[in-house]
Amino acid sequence: MLTPLQTDLAAVVEGVNLVWVLTVTFLIFFMHAGFAMLEAGQVRSKNVANQLTKNLLTWSVGVVVYFLLGAAVSTIVGGLTGGGPVSVSGAFADVYAPEAAATTAWVDWLFGAVFAMTAATIVSGAVAGRARLRAYVSYTVLLAGVIYPVVVGVTWAGGFLSTLGFHDFAGGMIVHGMGGIAGLTAAWVIGPRMDRYNDDGSANVIPGHSMTFAVLGTLILAFGWYGFNVGTAASPLALTESGEVTLGAFAYVGRVALVTTLGMAAGAIGAAGMAMYQTGKVDTLYVANGLLAGLVGVTAIADAIVWPGALVVGLLCGVQLPLVFSFVEKRLKIDDVCAVFPVHGSAGVLGAVLFPVFATGVWNGSASVVELAVPQLVGVAVIGVWTFVATAAVFGLFRSTGQARVTREHEREGLDTSEHGVDTYPEFGRPESETGLRADGGAFTDAEREE
Amino acid sequence: MLTPLQTDLAAVVEGVNLVWVLTVTFLIFFMHAGFAMLEAGQVRSKNVANQLTKNLLTWSVGVVVYFLLGAAVSTIVGGLTGGGPVSVSGAFADVYAPEAAATTAWVDWLFGAVFAMTAATIVSGAVAGRARLRAYVSYTVLLAGVIYPVVVGVTWAGGFLSTLGFHDFAGGMIVHGMGGIAGLTAAWVIGPRMDRYNDDGSANVIPGHSMTFAVLGTLILAFGWYGFNVGTAASPLALTESGEVTLGAFAYVGRVALVTTLGMAAGAIGAAGMAMYQTGKVDTLYVANGLLAGLVGVTAIADAIVWPGALVVGLLCGVQLPLVFSFVEKRLKIDDVCAVFPVHGSAGVLGAVLFPVFATGVWNGSASVVELAVPQLVGVAVIGVWTFVATAAVFGLFRSTGQARVTREHEREGLDTSEHGVDTYPEFGRPESETGLRADGGAFTDAEREE
Amino acid sequence: MLTPLQTDLAAVVEGVNLVWVLTVTFLIFFMHAGFAMLEAGQVRSKNVANQLTKNLLTWSVGVVVYFLLGAAVSTIVGGLTGGGPVSVSGAFADVYAPEAAATTAWVDWLFGAVFAMTAATIVSGAVAGRARLRAYVSYTVLLAGVIYPVVVGVTWAGGFLSTLGFHDFAGGMIVHGMGGIAGLTAAWVIGPRMDRYNDDGSANVIPGHSMTFAVLGTLILAFGWYGFNVGTAASPLALTESGEVTLGAFAYVGRVALVTTLGMAAGAIGAAGMAMYQTGKVDTLYVANGLLAGLVGVTAIADAIVWPGALVVGLLCGVQLPLVFSFVEKRLKIDDVCAVFPVHGSAGVLGAVLFPVFATGVWNGSASVVELAVPQLVGVAVIGVWTFVATAAVFGLFRSTGQARVTREHEREGLDTSEHGVDTYPEFGRPESETGLRADGGAFTDAEREE
Repeated sequence: MLTPLQTDLAAVVEGVNLVWVLTVTFLIFFMHAGFAMLEAGQVRSKNVANQLTKNLLTWSVGVVVYFLLGAAVSTIVGGLTGGGPVSVSGAFADVYAPEAAATTAWVDWLFGAVFAMTAATIVSGAVAGRARLRAYVSYTVLLAGVIYPVVVGVTWAGGFLSTLGFHDFAGGMIVHGMGGIAGLTAAWVIGPRMDRYNDDGSANVIPGHSMTFAVLGTLILAFGWYGFNVGTAASPLALTESGEVTLGAFAYVGRVALVTTLGMAAGAIGAAGMAMYQTGKVDTLYVANGLLAGLVGVTAIADAIVWPGALVVGLLCGVQLPLVFSFVEKRLKIDDVCAVFPVHGSAGVLGAVLFPVFATGVWNGSASVVELAVPQLVGVAVIGVWTFVATAAVFGLFRSTGQARVTREHEREGLDTSEHGVDTYPEFGRPESETGLRADGGAFTDAEREE
Repeated sequence: MLTPLQTDLAAVVEGVNLVWVLTVTFLIFFMHAGFAMLEAGQVRSKNVANQLTKNLLTWSVGVVVYFLLGAAVSTIVGGLTGGGPVSVSGAFADVYAPEAAATTAWVDWLFGAVFAMTAATIVSGAVAGRARLRAYVSYTVLLAGVIYPVVVGVTWAGGFLSTLGFHDFAGGMIVHGMGGIAGLTAAWVIGPRMDRYNDDGSANVIPGHSMTFAVLGTLILAFGWYGFNVGTAASPLALTESGEVTLGAFAYVGRVALVTTLGMAAGAIGAAGMAMYQTGKVDTLYVANGLLAGLVGVTAIADAIVWPGALVVGLLCGVQLPLVFSFVEKRLKIDDVCAVFPVHGSAGVLGAVLFPVFATGVWNGSASVVELAVPQLVGVAVIGVWTFVATAAVFGLFRSTGQARVTREHEREGLDTSEHGVDTYPEFGRPESETGLRADGGAFTDAEREE
Repeated sequence: MLTPLQTDLAAVVEGVNLVWVLTVTFLIFFMHAGFAMLEAGQVRSKNVANQLTKNLLTWSVGVVVYFLLGAAVSTIVGGLTGGGPVSVSGAFADVYAPEAAATTAWVDWLFGAVFAMTAATIVSGAVAGRARLRAYVSYTVLLAGVIYPVVVGVTWAGGFLSTLGFHDFAGGMIVHGMGGIAGLTAAWVIGPRMDRYNDDGSANVIPGHSMTFAVLGTLILAFGWYGFNVGTAASPLALTESGEVTLGAFAYVGRVALVTTLGMAAGAIGAAGMAMYQTGKVDTLYVANGLLAGLVGVTAIADAIVWPGALVVGLLCGVQLPLVFSFVEKRLKIDDVCAVFPVHGSAGVLGAVLFPVFATGVWNGSASVVELAVPQLVGVAVIGVWTFVATAAVFGLFRSTGQARVTREHEREGLDTSEHGVDTYPEFGRPESETGLRADGGAFTDAEREE
């Protein structure tokens, strides 16, 4: 039985926590504007409206599916694989008509939804310029309703990876790693854009239409990421069982804020340095994507690493970016248009796997590297395999029925016309848009790029 | 007499509430960036700087007028029509030198101001491409000083619609409906852009210059809208008369957050589906505007409807968008450049009018549809007629004195040159800018558009 | 010894204050997106990626340097010049391993860091289009590590200007004035862009490539500025020595919010009016920059002026913009590409210097103008001279070793190609990019501009 004072304090705690979770949820939602701009900037002008529409529909369709189905699937999978009690009807009732519906339950649902939609939207950047709109939207429905909820079920919702001790603070692997792997898989299944590879297997560069939009998107994402990472630092206030008010997990918010900042900065520096080393020039897109890769790298571990670790993890995430991008492009021959795998996939894996090396517990002697490493490796493997298999199956089905890609004519013409009936820039000349390559009809070959 | 503890708790309540209202006020302010980009993207490149300048001046001029005049007018009108005591000097003193000037009074004023400026800025999208800058700014002065304050006076400020029971949670009708109706009226009075209609009455499509900016604006608006709707869910903490702390109206914040999210998603889906049904293609701008229309639709009622209602209202707002746009364009022959009426006007009316059908009170049997419907219909009618008459009178006066529009030469040349002496994109070719139409000299006729 | 209740209340105070400072810190961080867009829009399309990269690296490199060095330098300089105890190792330990590391100390560091990076990023707009990337980044390292920390040391960190009574609420002089003066100095040392001045000394106008991005940047900056100014209104809750909770300095937050709003509005109006007076047209860029100058003007004094003062200071900051820009361009012959001196420098000085005229203390008779004026004048002089000397020395050294500017060939070709190996807009024609001037080969002379 709470005293009147404890009732007052409980209301204060609830009010402050609601203010925080709503604020950071809005910031994370705003990342959709970031993804839309980042991806739009990296595609040809003939495919911009298609990319924008995919982003709008990812959110609109995905969030409804996640409400009607996905959130309950998470709970059910969590119970099934975590040994907890499983009530299918209860899981849906918790979403549709929660006891405390009007207060925190639906706010918490929305907080989960913006994470889910972040994972979903990553995929669109990988399959840009050739995936059919209806194939992409159908996959988004499955991702929001099942594929991502299963990942959350086995982790944050109490499933077996959670029991094992898998540590993913804010979704470096669960959200970004998952999205990056899904994107790579989808891009692999549907094949590269026409003109992307020559008959001899060498790659052509198809530059995006606006670096300005790409960098704008990067900075919007970084802004929203503060909500993503720092926001996940739990609720500002907690009530102990005996009714005392404490900062709870929020006591670590300073660490999260610092590590997020240093991680993104080091990512940009790492990628800039690598670009300088490889070509003597600082490719703007590498710096932007390096900053994002640094953010991804620390996302899983921002609550529990030492700050020098943030610098190292961020740097490595930046440095691996051009290397992994080149490996995907030249060895795997996968056309990952917006580099979503090096930015979200490999950087997410790297952060999760490096956690044992930089964890505060290891540095202060309270935990061993091996003890921490096993759950991380198992977690990364489970999430990676599930995401790969599920995505390959879905897009494989689409491909086998001829639904995965637009026709060659539509791809050449641009998806804006064929899928949407619009011209993104009706007043600006696009001498290169006919072929998606250069005005002189040639292609940017590897050799030319190195000039 | 408060105990020392109650004094402490009162300070906590005030501090937390200030944090919330400031945060959401900043988000709502940021909607000006959204409107600027949404509108800039939908006009020809020769008129972009004009559109941007109008947005900058709407805020700058409007907010000063609202401070010096508008806020007090609201209070006075509220008192006059609500039967309360009316003190003209007191109303101004409350704005200029409020007792608690340094703390909450001016924060509350700013919260009101960002709503007022949202209503004001909607109009600029309707009259794009031909309204004179000085006519537009003069109208903004009147809107911020009188026209909008009267609407607030008879509703939120305690006037007769408030007494009647008119329900408008966050301004779906008061702000958006009002702005949409004002925009349609202004566009009607000043007439369409040249080349917009042919001699036989058929309409030409004049596409905007950048879908990317339009979608960016849409997503910025959706971000800010979370402040608009969820922010209006009152203060996070409340003090009861006996000094206890509760969540007050904030107890419903989860409902508001959910309904806002589902409403916008359903709006985008509804418009996308309608576009698909009509043309077989998913017009990007319809999806974006449908998302906004869905937001408008739930804005008046987000605190008090069941979630299936949010899906239905959002869908209807999306579906009506192409239909109403087409009706305005082809039957009314009004050139509403940025579709502000279907997005803000008719969607705002639809949400307000559908309230009785989906209100929680009706679904749980504590209220009757008719009881709720009468004040909604009266409120919509009063706000609509007032806005129409006031706007038509002002722009009619401008038109009768030849001040409403730029000259035909200036319109052809573009308002950027004639009104601002600038070229928005001095380096990018605009083969179509001479006529505002296509490079081949022809026009996008209805027939071509349907291709 | 705190009672259990006082412990509870202390946790509440800390939690609420953390929520606020993190929220406004994120807003201030987002200003980097604003600066990036504002500057990118004001440069030629051949130099856009260079401008974007500089902005990304300013943040990424600068924030790491500020962590490793700058923050400690502030503390040390504050102690040295303020007569306090000085511990070099202690100053670094407070940053690297603060006692309360995980909670507020690193949050407070980040709050300081976003201010430091704002000062740093202003410089890039002045030296656009010709400064070498490595020279600019090297200067940023020195600014973040020493030059700016010295300014903070002698003021906010308790140094001699603080002792003297110098008033700068949120950095109107410390951040913006300093950045504007640094930018002007750097632009002077490295000289104007080629083609900017003719042999007879007359100036050519080299218009930016996109007004839309410039205005977007302006509105993002205004949004972030609410965090900058209103956020600095201290912590929402304070604990008195006897353990009572009060609003503390947050009691003045309403004044700050109002003054910030009126200041920016008046700045836009002042610049629009001046443009109208000078040319009969309302130059969009003047309105945007005037809005920013108005914000700068009230930043130093927003906590302590009467609201009519905000209107006057804002108006003056707007009006001085075209005059100071013209003076810098035509008399000083300095090529300040993005007008950072009139926006941040002279407006920052104006606000700091006008403080004594509009301070509430003066208007209610509790302080004298002269008493307040002396520290303001001394503070502006000290900060101005230090910034000028340090910046001139650094860029002078770069110039003397031929490292300050790119070659003439690279400048003509554009820095995007030579420094970054990218083309920002590979699909859009740029007939004028060869010369940075007009397609017909001519230049926009002063005479033409006045047409």
